[in-house]
Amino acid sequence: MTAKLKIALLGSTGYSGAELMRLLVRHPRLDKPVLLSREKGDDCSDLANIFPSFSGNGSYPLQPLSWPLLMQQGVELLFLATPHAASRSLVPEAIARGLRVIDLSGAWRLKQAQHQAIYGFEDEDLLTAAELTAKAVYGLPELNGDQIPNAALIANPGCYATSVILALAPLLNAGIVDRQHGIISDSKSGVSGAGKEPTSRTHFVSVADNLSAYSVFYHRHVGEMVEQLKLDAGQMTFTPHLLPIPRGILSTVYVYLNHPMEPAEVESCFRSFYSGKRWVRVFPTPQLPEIQFSLRTNYCDLGFCLADDLRRLVVVSCVDNLLKGAAGQAVQNMNLMYGWGEEEGLQ
Amino acid sequence: MTAKLKIALLGSTGYSGAELMRLLVRHPRLDKPVLLSREKGDDCSDLANIFPSFSGNGSYPLQPLSWPLLMQQGVELLFLATPHAASRSLVPEAIARGLRVIDLSGAWRLKQAQHQAIYGFEDEDLLTAAELTAKAVYGLPELNGDQIPNAALIANPGCYATSVILALAPLLNAGIVDRQHGIISDSKSGVSGAGKEPTSRTHFVSVADNLSAYSVFYHRHVGEMVEQLKLDAGQMTFTPHLLPIPRGILSTVYVYLNHPMEPAEVESCFRSFYSGKRWVRVFPTPQLPEIQFSLRTNYCDLGFCLADDLRRLVVVSCVDNLLKGAAGQAVQNMNLMYGWGEEEGLQ
Amino acid sequence: MTAKLKIALLGSTGYSGAELMRLLVRHPRLDKPVLLSREKGDDCSDLANIFPSFSGNGSYPLQPLSWPLLMQQGVELLFLATPHAASRSLVPEAIARGLRVIDLSGAWRLKQAQHQAIYGFEDEDLLTAAELTAKAVYGLPELNGDQIPNAALIANPGCYATSVILALAPLLNAGIVDRQHGIISDSKSGVSGAGKEPTSRTHFVSVADNLSAYSVFYHRHVGEMVEQLKLDAGQMTFTPHLLPIPRGILSTVYVYLNHPMEPAEVESCFRSFYSGKRWVRVFPTPQLPEIQFSLRTNYCDLGFCLADDLRRLVVVSCVDNLLKGAAGQAVQNMNLMYGWGEEEGLQ
Amino acid sequence: MTAKLKIALLGSTGYSGAELMRLLVRHPRLDKPVLLSREKGDDCSDLANIFPSFSGNGSYPLQPLSWPLLMQQGVELLFLATPHAASRSLVPEAIARGLRVIDLSGAWRLKQAQHQAIYGFEDEDLLTAAELTAKAVYGLPELNGDQIPNAALIANPGCYATSVILALAPLLNAGIVDRQHGIISDSKSGVSGAGKEPTSRTHFVSVADNLSAYSVFYHRHVGEMVEQLKLDAGQMTFTPHLLPIPRGILSTVYVYLNHPMEPAEVESCFRSFYSGKRWVRVFPTPQLPEIQFSLRTNYCDLGFCLADDLRRLVVVSCVDNLLKGAAGQAVQNMNLMYGWGEEEGLQ
Repeated sequence: MTAKLKIALLGSTGYSGAELMRLLVRHPRLDKPVLLSREKGDDCSDLANIFPSFSGNGSYPLQPLSWPLLMQQGVELLFLATPHAASRSLVPEAIARGLRVIDLSGAWRLKQAQHQAIYGFEDEDLLTAAELTAKAVYGLPELNGDQIPNAALIANPGCYATSVILALAPLLNAGIVDRQHGIISDSKSGVSGAGKEPTSRTHFVSVADNLSAYSVFYHRHVGEMVEQLKLDAGQMTFTPHLLPIPRGILSTVYVYLNHPMEPAEVESCFRSFYSGKRWVRVFPTPQLPEIQFSLRTNYCDLGFCLADDLRRLVVVSCVDNLLKGAAGQAVQNMNLMYGWGEEEGLQ
Repeated sequence: MTAKLKIALLGSTGYSGAELMRLLVRHPRLDKPVLLSREKGDDCSDLANIFPSFSGNGSYPLQPLSWPLLMQQGVELLFLATPHAASRSLVPEAIARGLRVIDLSGAWRLKQAQHQAIYGFEDEDLLTAAELTAKAVYGLPELNGDQIPNAALIANPGCYATSVILALAPLLNAGIVDRQHGIISDSKSGVSGAGKEPTSRTHFVSVADNLSAYSVFYHRHVGEMVEQLKLDAGQMTFTPHLLPIPRGILSTVYVYLNHPMEPAEVESCFRSFYSGKRWVRVFPTPQLPEIQFSLRTNYCDLGFCLADDLRRLVVVSCVDNLLKGAAGQAVQNMNLMYGWGEEEGLQ
Repeated sequence: MTAKLKIALLGSTGYSGAELMRLLVRHPRLDKPVLLSREKGDDCSDLANIFPSFSGNGSYPLQPLSWPLLMQQGVELLFLATPHAASRSLVPEAIARGLRVIDLSGAWRLKQAQHQAIYGFEDEDLLTAAELTAKAVYGLPELNGDQIPNAALIANPGCYATSVILALAPLLNAGIVDRQHGIISDSKSGVSGAGKEPTSRTHFVSVADNLSAYSVFYHRHVGEMVEQLKLDAGQMTFTPHLLPIPRGILSTVYVYLNHPMEPAEVESCFRSFYSGKRWVRVFPTPQLPEIQFSLRTNYCDLGFCLADDLRRLVVVSCVDNLLKGAAGQAVQNMNLMYGWGEEEGLQ
Repeated sequence: MTAKLKIALLGSTGYSGAELMRLLVRHPRLDKPVLLSREKGDDCSDLANIFPSFSGNGSYPLQPLSWPLLMQQGVELLFLATPHAASRSLVPEAIARGLRVIDLSGAWRLKQAQHQAIYGFEDEDLLTAAELTAKAVYGLPELNGDQIPNAALIANPGCYATSVILALAPLLNAGIVDRQHGIISDSKSGVSGAGKEPTSRTHFVSVADNLSAYSVFYHRHVGEMVEQLKLDAGQMTFTPHLLPIPRGILSTVYVYLNHPMEPAEVESCFRSFYSGKRWVRVFPTPQLPEIQFSLRTNYCDLGFCLADDLRRLVVVSCVDNLLKGAAGQAVQNMNLMYGWGEEEGLQ
């Protein structure tokens, strides 16, 4: 039996980080994770104090981030579930010390300068930043599965982006979409996607019995979508909505086909693209996925309906924003980086 | 002081009917409504037995439907909150007796045979049906306000249709929409829109923590939309979704403008079309309506966002499906039929 | 026709204040309310900017609180929907100027020093505070209806307290409860009761799919309950819970009867106590109220079940925490203060 | 490596059955479960057709129940997630064939005739029924852990009963409760506890934004509680409520202590009783469990508050009704029956 991998996690106190922690402690290939905190000093207590659901099964102490200590503990892989700016400054330090990194933030997802502008990073060392941007692999295993095994830095995709890219990649790859006509994704997300910070927008009374659209045309995830799908920015219309549920995303994606196709041809396009992909389920037309089906799983579920003009196509894509949209995908990336089964620790 | 109008209501035990009842008992121009039941015999008890919220404020006895009795009671106007097929057979009888009718079902909304086909009516008297179809006024006051005052039969619009038509009418009327490009409405509705019948689809556990699309391309309300908006069927893509909330509709409507326009021009288009319309609120761009804002009101709230290409336009439209989408609109129609203020009984 | 009353409201931006505003603008006896803000200067904008549901029906400008201006505007009655400490310092100023006041906070509800201690007030003028405490009428119309008409200062009851006191008053008044045995109220409230301030406790993800008990034995409202019901503190066990709904309270109240009674006797005890009370509905046993029945009404709904030992009695009491538990009760108190019908502006 | 156990499950299409299926397919000691259906003939399709969340990971075909086939397939243990009456008639047949049975229904939970009366069974063979009743072990491992390893028939406890019994057992066992004073459990459950059958009571619109009490004093689970806790029926007051959440139970339990005790003594009573019990978590006073903490786990979480009279004690107990309240407890029982670790297949 091979030795277990030693990993560390910084940012376990947000929703994605806590979900990642849940997966990591159960993963059969891992040593007990080192939990890091950016807080210095006495406040580094146990994760169970923040999330009581972690109690009753051993202790999960947080230790302040210290690079020498990490090296000494034999950590090889670092997960970052930190805000964008924190990831932007931490990753160069980690990579310089020979750690591999899976970063759940948006810090390293975008290659093109015009898209990166949306995050407004102030890099201290521009050369390193440029080099790391070039090296970073966008960690969507169904698209970039061949680059992930050797990656030093994985930029884990955004939750909305995962649902939209997986809905569109097979169609765009097959060249059957009329890109000039424009693509629309009307996406709806549960509240955990908005983060753990209490705001008037995430107050229960603001969300319950409600639905609202926000950031129309200008959500940050559009950058990832158009880069990964090789679209012009103006070809992608993206409207996110806030759903009165804790978690889950459903994207309703509208495309116009280049030429009339039969439903069976479209289904075959999806099936062949995702053949052998463990974490995508293609539903037989006209069955459609619902948020509940993929909730608390690492699946991206896909289904579609075709109009009787055989041109207008509606694709429905569902993911759990905290799993396939964040922590689950991070584990899937780790599995590929270390040559393990893609489903390990995710069932 | 003028005498109060005597009205009757059949179908007070569904969600729309009960909501209508709530409005009618408070309306200052009306006598106490006559509550009708299609059940014969002893089971015609009090509405408070079905909806305990009606208790404590007088009695609301249900009486079996009897045309002679209605005539004798001096009823002039009949509200039907009955299933489509029931309305289809009851309306000819009511009109023949000189009653005016506001029908909340889909029975008389569609003029064109190809659309009517979706309801599959089996009319006993085809001539009468054709005559009534011609006479029926589609009761959307903001569009057909001039025909409503003299109408004998009002076909009260569908809830989804109300939200979509009001979002699009100003733009189509101004001729600024590229119809060939196609129009998309991605609509989301609360569960009361699915009716009071318990089914596995309306079970709490099926709906909570979930979102699902259904009837993609083929929902019945598409017929109303394309008829009222004078579109070809293939120009309208409509995707309804079931939200985990009791009531409220939000439609996200996507259109492509004929030529680039400034946001102020688009806002002005909405404002001039709805100038003087009591129950439509146009939000200043880029503020968007949310379901909560119009909940438990008769408002249709409209807002929009324009992409920086000045061609892609997203309109967000919210109504309460039981009020502006059903019972409130029915009262608004009654107000117009009898020359009362459009807001009476609706504040 | 008599002149309309001029009122002012301070604190319209919280949940109770906004609900009160909704009632006041519709009340037939009132002039347009003066909306006051504790913010000085330019930030005093329109209420519709804070609650978009107020838009479309005239303007609701906020003006900074100024006593001379209030006098000049002819205001006679002031509603305070302010925090406890603010009410404690504002009321003496208002009363000194001859205004009548209805205060929705807990500032003036408690007569006994040991209970007042829970609010920890730092009164500048102890004599005035003592005098006002003596003068203040606890504004529960079903109990203190005779003192309300002449009151200068109404201390509007707490939401939990309203539900619990109304469940118990008839039984304690009839002397049929074994007080030594102890009384338990297991109460459950919607989230608006926790206020509009965003906290980790009111975050949607914390509340949804959850239920939690809090402040067991030591909630502030216990003081009101035992004072109004003339109980010893140790005789009342009160456990509040936070429900995943926006509004509504259900209290399940457990008492032990002095001697065996028939259900009909207990029902008669409730019915005679609440005879003629417009805003209490007693359900026929064994029918029980539910939160939905009283939601968005000013009713307190009461029902009960009696064990077959004819001693153990469970009373279920429901109110809408923002109406009968706050704003609606404030309007009911105003109606009594000015000799109007108890239901005016509340239907 | 030892051979894997062959099990069968009848009733996988209800909520508890599907949850059990989820656990069984992941259990490391088990062969792929045999899924049985009471439907004969062609309708026995795949579980993924009923619960799409089962798709994508192999097939789960249902086969009609046939005893000879079960024997031939080498099944040793049968799980029944069937209605009470079905379990009552199926268990004798299974036991007669030498199968061990874990029955999730209420059919075999009650020993005393007066309690059994509440289920109204019509046993064909009274002697067998009496014999099986005597043999059946009430499968609450924390109480009856010594009888479970050798049991042929496990009567898996009710969900409410699990939460209430585990809250009370340590206190009653220690003899510190004043039984004469009476014990109250005010319990609140998510909707999956009401079963999958669509009814007007489980309609989303009936449950959302609501809370209701039901079956006050007379819920079936009271029988289990008083039997297992050795109480007189009149000593236990139980009020269940329906919460607007899909799953989870919180019981607020009120007891009166025989004599004053310090909080530390009470905590110690709980800790010593549950020492070594893998699936009970005792919270340090005054921290209280919430439904979310135990959701989707097999834990029963317990916490308490003691009044300053040191006599009135409130215990809060949370379980997931589908796990520790049903399917999880069934697996825990199986683990004990076969000498496996109590946590296997449950983490």
